[in-house]
Amino acid sequence: MSHKNFPMVPRVIFGRGSFNQLNEIIAPKRLSIHAPFIFLVDDVFKGNTSLLSRISLSYDDKIIFISAEEEPKTSQVDQLVEDIILMSKERPSGIIGIGGGTLLDLAKAVSIMLTNEGESKDYQGWDLVKNPAIYHVGIPTISGTGAEVSRTTVLTGPTRKLGINSDYTPFDQVILDSDLTEEVEHNQWFYTGMDCYIHCIESLSGTYLNTFSQSYGDMAYQLCKEVFLDNNLTEEESREKLMMASWHGGMSIAYSQVGVAHAMSYGLAYLLGTKHGIGNCIVFDHLEEFYPDGVKLFKQMKTKHNIELPQGICAHLSDEDFDIMINIALSLTPLWENALGKNWEKRISREKLKSLYQKM
Amino acid sequence: MSHKNFPMVPRVIFGRGSFNQLNEIIAPKRLSIHAPFIFLVDDVFKGNTSLLSRISLSYDDKIIFISAEEEPKTSQVDQLVEDIILMSKERPSGIIGIGGGTLLDLAKAVSIMLTNEGESKDYQGWDLVKNPAIYHVGIPTISGTGAEVSRTTVLTGPTRKLGINSDYTPFDQVILDSDLTEEVEHNQWFYTGMDCYIHCIESLSGTYLNTFSQSYGDMAYQLCKEVFLDNNLTEEESREKLMMASWHGGMSIAYSQVGVAHAMSYGLAYLLGTKHGIGNCIVFDHLEEFYPDGVKLFKQMKTKHNIELPQGICAHLSDEDFDIMINIALSLTPLWENALGKNWEKRISREKLKSLYQKM
Repeated sequence: MSHKNFPMVPRVIFGRGSFNQLNEIIAPKRLSIHAPFIFLVDDVFKGNTSLLSRISLSYDDKIIFISAEEEPKTSQVDQLVEDIILMSKERPSGIIGIGGGTLLDLAKAVSIMLTNEGESKDYQGWDLVKNPAIYHVGIPTISGTGAEVSRTTVLTGPTRKLGINSDYTPFDQVILDSDLTEEVEHNQWFYTGMDCYIHCIESLSGTYLNTFSQSYGDMAYQLCKEVFLDNNLTEEESREKLMMASWHGGMSIAYSQVGVAHAMSYGLAYLLGTKHGIGNCIVFDHLEEFYPDGVKLFKQMKTKHNIELPQGICAHLSDEDFDIMINIALSLTPLWENALGKNWEKRISREKLKSLYQKM
Repeated sequence: MSHKNFPMVPRVIFGRGSFNQLNEIIAPKRLSIHAPFIFLVDDVFKGNTSLLSRISLSYDDKIIFISAEEEPKTSQVDQLVEDIILMSKERPSGIIGIGGGTLLDLAKAVSIMLTNEGESKDYQGWDLVKNPAIYHVGIPTISGTGAEVSRTTVLTGPTRKLGINSDYTPFDQVILDSDLTEEVEHNQWFYTGMDCYIHCIESLSGTYLNTFSQSYGDMAYQLCKEVFLDNNLTEEESREKLMMASWHGGMSIAYSQVGVAHAMSYGLAYLLGTKHGIGNCIVFDHLEEFYPDGVKLFKQMKTKHNIELPQGICAHLSDEDFDIMINIALSLTPLWENALGKNWEKRISREKLKSLYQKM
C-alpha cells in the first residue's frame, strides 16, 4: 500500500489585519522590474478603496477584476493566461488571488498554465501537471471552500467539471485575514460555509478516512457547529472560526474525499451552471438516506439562518438533461468509492440519481 | 500590529507503513553521487533490522547512531557537523532524523549548521539563521514533542537552554508512521505524550492565543484525552491519535507559546540534565496554582497509567543551584508573558520559583 505524500501550503499568516502585510510578503519574490505581480480580484471589490488601497502596484503590476457570478472555466483560464502573457514583458513574478473559491481556483490554475504548455482542459485529472507553477498567493474573502489549502483547482471544461489535482496546485502563501470576509452577503456566507460543513460530513463518513483526515475533519465540524448552531460567538469570532473551519476542512480532504453531495452538485454545475456552494446545499438537503445525522443538522442550520433554498430547478429538464447530469456525477469514481465503498456501483443506480435530481 | 508569517512543513506523509516510502521520497533530492544522505538514528534502533533494512544506503550515504539519553547540546551539533563535513566529499544531499525529539532537533540543527558559519550556540534565539538549511526530513518514533512540525530546535548551550527559532528550522518533509512508535517504553510514552498535553494547556490558557492556535490546541487536547483517559481505542488507534496530537500540538504553538512548566523545566534540564518530557511532568505536577484544571486532569492520567514521578530531585541543591535554575527560567520572557501577561514580572518572584523547585 502506498500513502500519499501530501503537499501543504508552506507559508500561512493568520490574523485580523494581516492583509496589510501583503506587500512586504511578496516583495522579495519579485523576479525583475519586468516581471509583474498580477492580482486577480473578485469584482465585488471594484471601487472598494479600503481593500484596493492596500495593494501597492509597482512597475508593471496589474489588477484584473473578475466576476465570480459563474463557476471558473478552463476557457476562462486559457484566456487569462493569454492576456497575462500579452500584457507582461516577462513571465510574471506571481499571481495573487483575492476572493472566494472561484478567484482562488482561477489563481491556482493560471499560475500552473503560465508554466505548462497547451490548454488547461488537458490537465483536468490527477497528477498531469509537469512543471512547477509560478509563485501564487491565496487570500480568501469568503470562508468555506478550503480552496486556500487544497491541492486541486476545480474547473468546468468542455466535457466535464473536474479539478486539476497536482502537487504544484497548492498556494505558496496564504493570508487568512477574517476582516476581509466582513461584507459577505448572508446567503453567500451560508452556502460557502456549508461547503465546509459538507466536506466534513462527506470526509468523516467516507471509507477513505484515516486518522490524519479525521482529526482535521473533527475540528472543522466542531467549528462549523459553533459558527452555525451555537449562539456564543461575537461576529469577529464567528468570522475567524469559520476561516479556520474552512482551512481544516480543506486539510481533511488530504487523505480523504468528498462524496455524494459533491458528485451530484458537479452534475448541476455542469448542466445548469449552479454555483458550487448553493448547489451542494440543494443536493445535500435531499441526502438523508446517505448522511442521516449530517442532513438533520444541516436542516437545523438552514432554519436557524432563515435560508430558503431554490426549489424545482430540475422541474423542466428533459431525459437527456438528466442523463448529462448523471453521467457527470457517476464519472467521479473516487467520490463514490469514498462514499459507498469498493462496490459502489452495486449500491447506486442511474434511476436513483434521477429520482434524487427530480426532487431538486 | 504585525502577524507572523508561519512556515509549515511543505510535505507530509501519514499512515502505517509509510516509512517504507522513505527511499523513493528522498531519491529525487540527491544532488550528486558524492553528496550523501546522512541518517541520524536513535541508537535504540541499533540492531533493529526491521527498521534498518528499510533504509537503503547508496554511494556515500551513512547512518550515524546517536544516544538520546541526554538532551541535545550545541557542542554535540557542532561536533556532528564537523564529522559530517570530514566524511563527505560534498555537502550532503540531506539529513534524515529518525527518533524522538532529541534526534529530530539534532537533525534540524545539523542541517542548519551545514550552511551557516560559526557555532550553533550563536544561533540560539529568534531569527538569527541567515542561510536556508540543507534538505532535512523528520521521522518521529516517539509522539508528543511536536518537534516534527515546529520552527525551533531546542539545544542546551554553554550559557543557556534555548531554541534556534527560524523560518529555516522546520523540516522539508515529515513521515508520520505510527508503527515506528510501537516499541516505546511505557514511561517514555507517557512523559513524551505529556509534553504534547502540556503544550496544549500552556497554549490554550496563554495570553498569546489566537483562533488559529486555539483550533489546533483544542484538537490536540481532545486527542490527548482520548489517548490517555478514555478507554475506547485499540493500541494502533491510540498510536495514530497520539501522533496526530503531537502534530497539532506543535502547530498550536505557531501563534502561541508554552508557559510556566516549560520555563521551569528548562531550568531543571540546564542544571541537572533532566530530560524534557519527564522534566515537564515533574514541574507540571506542582502547578495547580497556574493551571488548575490541566493539573487535575494530569494527575488522573498519571494515576491511570501507574506513573510514579521521581521525588526530591532538588532536595540537595545549594542556593547557588537554585539561582542558576531560576535565572534560566526567568530569562525566557515570551513564555512568562504568554503565561501571565505583560505584567508577568509583578506576578512571579524568585522566591516563588524557589519554593516550587524545592517541592520537586
